[in-house]
Amino acid sequence: MMRFSTLIRHPADWMIGGAVDNAVVLTSRIRLARNLHLAPFPGWATAEQRRQAMDKILPVIQELRPMKDAFAQSLSGLTSVQKQVLVERHLISREHAARTEGSAAVIERRQSLSIMVNEEDHLRMQSIRPGLNLRVAFEALNEVDDELQQTLQFAFDRRLGYLTTCPTNLGTGLRASAMLHLPGLVLSDQIGQVLNAIGRMGLAVRGLYGEGTESLGNLYQISNQSTLGETEMQIIDRLERVISRVAFHELNARWKLIEDDPLMVHDKMGRSFGILQHAWLIDSKEALNHLSILRMGANLGFFPLETVRLCDNLLMEIQPAHLQLQRGIKLSPEQRDERRAQIIRANLQNVPSPVMVTAQTKKLPYNEPPSSSEL
Amino acid sequence: MMRFSTLIRHPADWMIGGAVDNAVVLTSRIRLARNLHLAPFPGWATAEQRRQAMDKILPVIQELRPMKDAFAQSLSGLTSVQKQVLVERHLISREHAARTEGSAAVIERRQSLSIMVNEEDHLRMQSIRPGLNLRVAFEALNEVDDELQQTLQFAFDRRLGYLTTCPTNLGTGLRASAMLHLPGLVLSDQIGQVLNAIGRMGLAVRGLYGEGTESLGNLYQISNQSTLGETEMQIIDRLERVISRVAFHELNARWKLIEDDPLMVHDKMGRSFGILQHAWLIDSKEALNHLSILRMGANLGFFPLETVRLCDNLLMEIQPAHLQLQRGIKLSPEQRDERRAQIIRANLQNVPSPVMVTAQTKKLPYNEPPSSSEL
Repeated sequence: MMRFSTLIRHPADWMIGGAVDNAVVLTSRIRLARNLHLAPFPGWATAEQRRQAMDKILPVIQELRPMKDAFAQSLSGLTSVQKQVLVERHLISREHAARTEGSAAVIERRQSLSIMVNEEDHLRMQSIRPGLNLRVAFEALNEVDDELQQTLQFAFDRRLGYLTTCPTNLGTGLRASAMLHLPGLVLSDQIGQVLNAIGRMGLAVRGLYGEGTESLGNLYQISNQSTLGETEMQIIDRLERVISRVAFHELNARWKLIEDDPLMVHDKMGRSFGILQHAWLIDSKEALNHLSILRMGANLGFFPLETVRLCDNLLMEIQPAHLQLQRGIKLSPEQRDERRAQIIRANLQNVPSPVMVTAQTKKLPYNEPPSSSEL
Repeated sequence: MMRFSTLIRHPADWMIGGAVDNAVVLTSRIRLARNLHLAPFPGWATAEQRRQAMDKILPVIQELRPMKDAFAQSLSGLTSVQKQVLVERHLISREHAARTEGSAAVIERRQSLSIMVNEEDHLRMQSIRPGLNLRVAFEALNEVDDELQQTLQFAFDRRLGYLTTCPTNLGTGLRASAMLHLPGLVLSDQIGQVLNAIGRMGLAVRGLYGEGTESLGNLYQISNQSTLGETEMQIIDRLERVISRVAFHELNARWKLIEDDPLMVHDKMGRSFGILQHAWLIDSKEALNHLSILRMGANLGFFPLETVRLCDNLLMEIQPAHLQLQRGIKLSPEQRDERRAQIIRANLQNVPSPVMVTAQTKKLPYNEPPSSSEL
């Protein structure tokens, strides 16, 4: 079985991005909720019934092709720091991390696919891809779902669709979401307006760690709210259209900032760069905000493009549990701030000072606006 | 006659510091106020009487040995930016800069000696030296005073001493002051206590530009308040004792900070350094504060010692009138912020990143505390 340290030593496939355009959309995520037919849902089940469900599900998951040499672990076998690391990597939910006996996580080697067993539902499966790739993520997960259904029978109602613990997941059991980097809209004070428009379209906007969390580093998660009355592809199509539209506005906002006030933008780049390269104590919030500016700067040409990947890796690595896992000991907040600054300095030491970028340099990656009439 | 541009192109002798210990005391300054016997004081004189006084005084000043090839100029022949530059260099007072016809300034080539004619008094002479050198500054000025009195007769009363426009200058007409850099006391929250103690001893504390100005860049000017009832040497001795004592506290505070919280100090050094090296817009206040940290860092060993001189030069050069004089045009506040950032970046580009300094590295420049019982 794959060891935890082996799993975490490598960045997830979707953290690396590679050739994918992820200037605005960092990742696309699909989640499906499923429950076993005729077995009490986890919240109502006895400990024994939960164990029984797990024992039924786990071997089937491990037979899945992509899960052949996956990381599979009962949550009772993980320390709280290890569980927190999985949360920070978006591989399990905060709620799942709070569970122990009778719950498990199976995570594919490249971290593109993960399945929580006995979270709120018997199965919560998720597929992540870099950039705006909700369809691809869905297709991968749909295949897994089909394969599981050859062995497991899921609770399904002809009228309601898949049955879930929470009625908001009834029907498709699908949650599609994308993580967007929106510093341009924030700096140009358009973010409130855009988020309102998204809300009016029946979509949800959340912070870095999902429901009820604050936006850090100008990162916003946009997802569908309703799971009933639309097919999976309708949900995904609609979400992709809105997200493309937001991304288009974001890119425009960035270039507009450069056109209107190039010095202010350059100053922001320089300061974030200078602070990240020379701070010896830095908290999460400040680090995320400066990395956000650096990431935008790399996309705009102020820094080499490979700086984007450095930033995305750091966004992950400087989180509290990641820091503690790496050091192998519990760290006080101040020790974390010290360690965080140290890791950032080491990673950014070869990034050159920002070069001047003007509106003339402009090369919009999107040639024309997507067709949606809203936003 | 020396041209204005020639005068200002070079830093003043006291800005360079050289081998002098100026870790805490940047400069020592002595000022003497004198008036002509039987001539109405400037505030009461007619324009004609002011001109007469000036015509009488100027040739005598220009005969002084140190003033042989000095800069000498009626204030009506200077632009407002030029006058402001002289204020920023502490060569004339703000009040003097507001005058035109009938007032003049004579400034020795190395800017260690300057004489204002028809400021509040007929003559306001000043001598500046780097470091804590009030006696040396006084001796130089005393010589000038003696030499002037061989030709000019000054208003003098056997009981009151030298007569001056403002009664607070009566007697010796002497104001002795020093500019102190006190970041250690500010960062360790001891500054209020120290300033109160100085006030209780009958001394005045002011900001960078004298009376009624705010402290910027952790710079404080300490001076005597009373000019009556003590000899010049008594005033100077007392002031030097207090200043040594404050300097001792400041140095202790700096090392105490390193001992108590080396990371915080290192972090501050790094951040100020990073911002100064990479900002593209910076206002006076922020620049002075970061330069103050950098200057302290250079004295403590975080940066090469020659960085102190760079900082002291920059403290002068980034002031509004200096920036405008150098560019030859009037600059808006934003243009000044841009130009200021540019000059700082250019000057600091070869300063290396701060190295780690710990309390073990400690080498106190003062071996033992001065003997004063107070403070």
